[in-house]
Amino acid sequence: MKDTQTTLNKAVALILQYLESNWHPETKVVNYQAADVLQEKLDLSLPDEGVTLEELIPIVESYLQYSVRTGSTQFFNLLFSGSSIPGILAEMVTSATNTTMHTYDVAPVATLMERELIKNLNSLVGFQQGEGLMVTGGSNANLVGMLCGRHKVLPEAKLKGLGHHRLVAFVSEQAHYSYAKAANLMGIGIENLVKVNSDREGKMIPEALEAAIQQSLSERKTPFFVGATAGTTVLGAFDPLPEIAVITKKYGLWLHVDGAWGAPVLFSKKHQHLLAGSELVNSFTWDAHKLMGVPLICSAILVKNQGILQKACSGGGTDYLFHDDENAPYNLGQMSLQCGRKVDTLKLWLCWQYYGNKGYEQQVDKLFDLAHYAVNYIQNCDNLELIAEPKFLNICFRYIPQENQLDSTVIDQLNLEIRKQLIYSGEIFVNQARYQGKIIIRLILANSELQKADLEKFFDNLINAGKMCEAIGV
Amino acid sequence: MKDTQTTLNKAVALILQYLESNWHPETKVVNYQAADVLQEKLDLSLPDEGVTLEELIPIVESYLQYSVRTGSTQFFNLLFSGSSIPGILAEMVTSATNTTMHTYDVAPVATLMERELIKNLNSLVGFQQGEGLMVTGGSNANLVGMLCGRHKVLPEAKLKGLGHHRLVAFVSEQAHYSYAKAANLMGIGIENLVKVNSDREGKMIPEALEAAIQQSLSERKTPFFVGATAGTTVLGAFDPLPEIAVITKKYGLWLHVDGAWGAPVLFSKKHQHLLAGSELVNSFTWDAHKLMGVPLICSAILVKNQGILQKACSGGGTDYLFHDDENAPYNLGQMSLQCGRKVDTLKLWLCWQYYGNKGYEQQVDKLFDLAHYAVNYIQNCDNLELIAEPKFLNICFRYIPQENQLDSTVIDQLNLEIRKQLIYSGEIFVNQARYQGKIIIRLILANSELQKADLEKFFDNLINAGKMCEAIGV
Repeated sequence: MKDTQTTLNKAVALILQYLESNWHPETKVVNYQAADVLQEKLDLSLPDEGVTLEELIPIVESYLQYSVRTGSTQFFNLLFSGSSIPGILAEMVTSATNTTMHTYDVAPVATLMERELIKNLNSLVGFQQGEGLMVTGGSNANLVGMLCGRHKVLPEAKLKGLGHHRLVAFVSEQAHYSYAKAANLMGIGIENLVKVNSDREGKMIPEALEAAIQQSLSERKTPFFVGATAGTTVLGAFDPLPEIAVITKKYGLWLHVDGAWGAPVLFSKKHQHLLAGSELVNSFTWDAHKLMGVPLICSAILVKNQGILQKACSGGGTDYLFHDDENAPYNLGQMSLQCGRKVDTLKLWLCWQYYGNKGYEQQVDKLFDLAHYAVNYIQNCDNLELIAEPKFLNICFRYIPQENQLDSTVIDQLNLEIRKQLIYSGEIFVNQARYQGKIIIRLILANSELQKADLEKFFDNLINAGKMCEAIGV
Repeated sequence: MKDTQTTLNKAVALILQYLESNWHPETKVVNYQAADVLQEKLDLSLPDEGVTLEELIPIVESYLQYSVRTGSTQFFNLLFSGSSIPGILAEMVTSATNTTMHTYDVAPVATLMERELIKNLNSLVGFQQGEGLMVTGGSNANLVGMLCGRHKVLPEAKLKGLGHHRLVAFVSEQAHYSYAKAANLMGIGIENLVKVNSDREGKMIPEALEAAIQQSLSERKTPFFVGATAGTTVLGAFDPLPEIAVITKKYGLWLHVDGAWGAPVLFSKKHQHLLAGSELVNSFTWDAHKLMGVPLICSAILVKNQGILQKACSGGGTDYLFHDDENAPYNLGQMSLQCGRKVDTLKLWLCWQYYGNKGYEQQVDKLFDLAHYAVNYIQNCDNLELIAEPKFLNICFRYIPQENQLDSTVIDQLNLEIRKQLIYSGEIFVNQARYQGKIIIRLILANSELQKADLEKFFDNLINAGKMCEAIGV
């Protein structure tokens, strides 16, 4: 164990050195290698004879060397960024105590923590008598939300199948593609996921929703589910929940909110208005691994009323797992689509203890301020064009050539090339998207350590890359 | 960072102390507390103001204090046991480099590792041109297998839904309940999951399968999927794949194998015959967090022929995620039901490096020898009755009273009570199940550190508990 401790301490030192160097101005966000090149560099064969623990350290070093620094303040690519020491600590303990969440008996503390976390998240959403569960990601939470909706409207499907019913679900055209995956998986069919028009800000248009519901009724289909979004993936739009809730109530549909990205605005007194009406909906997706900075995966499905999760998700017939003992009411497994389930509770627990409600509020408020700063920067820069006025932490813009080049495909090509060059050089990791036919740069502010100077560096590097691409005639 | 390093090193020391004490003979496998009692003992409120990293250490200590020691050699409760230092090391690095598996660009090394791991697992199964993916658990892998089967037989369901088709799937009556969850989720209906009779050893009876398929055809239903099992949950039975494959081929059905528990016999030249015919099937579930000792969750879905995973699982329409760049052929996300996906690759990678193929072979062979020893022990003990001759690492037996008490419900009660007392006292964590109407004790041999002496201790404690329960007239 002495040697083991030495080796693990060495790993701790390597990891901290890696994270610390995220802050050095000269550190690249990625040491980019094309896949076929990296494949050549790494020896990826698995051995017949094992090696010592100490011999694993060089593998760890090379893993660190070629990993993308998602903790860097120049990583804006996805809906998460930053690094979490309490999260790392939690994952060490979680893997050492390695258990599964299906019954209280084998995961006593983690089960109590999960129940308490769900209670707190529900309280933020406004579900006073709710239930919930940690699941395997935001996509999975959306799926479970849709399954709850199906169970509400068509409970017999659990035993009998969908039968002749042609279920129809509704989301905005800006909603996450996980809804399409869910419609596929659940045998509903992607064509029966109706994409409702959204407005210029990316918000679902309630009148368009109602028209779509009526259309599907006129086709003798069975509308059952509306999937609203709080923080869309590209624009960061929040669908208008109060208006949508009136419609879902009128037609008896399940209303789910995908809050994977936007939910933590609920920590902020200043910005929680974006989620006004959240208490009116039936279920809610919350990803703590996005804006709350917990290591992936840390997702919850929250449900307003108790009882439906177990009815919708359980499979029955499991003598060997679920015993009718004194702790049975605490068991979480029968609400889950999983059997063995990793403890994702401790990492959220330790992060929440570390930051506190106020810490999360400050982080959210600070990132909104930075978003405001970024928007001003773009609007005051001749080379940059804002694509939509952001309401959240997604800043969508594009680089505009200095010469009055108006051919849209050339501008698209230029922006694609800028992004590529920034990644190749390791200066910035930022994503592109297509919006209203245009290639745009999507700047995501998710890293709680972000400062104005990081944004200035980002824009400087991006504009320089743009000028260079222009100069060499890309 | 200095303080951070000190705190994380303290956590390493605590964890190693915790794991080391698993080996002390006086260490209890659980410090059992009923849920309501433990809830009182722990302060589970979340704060407004955050705390320091150092202040998280007492939380970690209390987490360790009340966690079940799944790493103990007296933990026989589930299909995993033991602790994995390479796995803990990997989870530290994984959480520090925190990324998602959907594209090569953001997870370069982990993506290449995953592809290599899948290739190696496929090679063990006998899928020479296969594909595959890490998924969120064995249940999820079975679900994806069933979805691939649906896509093979009814590809139009992806866009159109199930329509009027009444799909029917077949598993043995001993199969895992995740198949029922999948039938529910996929809109097929649990009643359309036909449970085929199994023989005395728990193996699916091929003639019964064919009769069930013909029955469903005669009812104008659409058979599409057979879910065989390699290592059933209670008895550890291996369904006869060659005979089943003849039938699925004849009727054009997808043949999936749930090898969540039994797959690693493929490492053993001596025992791989249990999975004879694995190369004949269409898809395969492999849980590396069970017999391979990797921390939860580490599961793979393996598919014999390339192309179907993406067709079956993708949702389409994701400009902002999947770019058509030079690394696109390496991206794994479009084969997945998830969007954000934790790296489960590094922990399997480091464990496999650490043990090597031979190490895993030795572990499997050793556990089979211990199973043989346990069976002999039971057969030579007047107080114990073997329920079925095991073919794998599940030893199902029960305690039999010394007085010639024949009332079956009394024996059931006695065995329930024995198990409860062993957990309350913290001496043993072992599971019960019901088989052929009887309450049985299911001893699972999954811990690679297990020795004969541990089994002797187990039987001694169990028999003593039985005698005590008898004495006090339970």
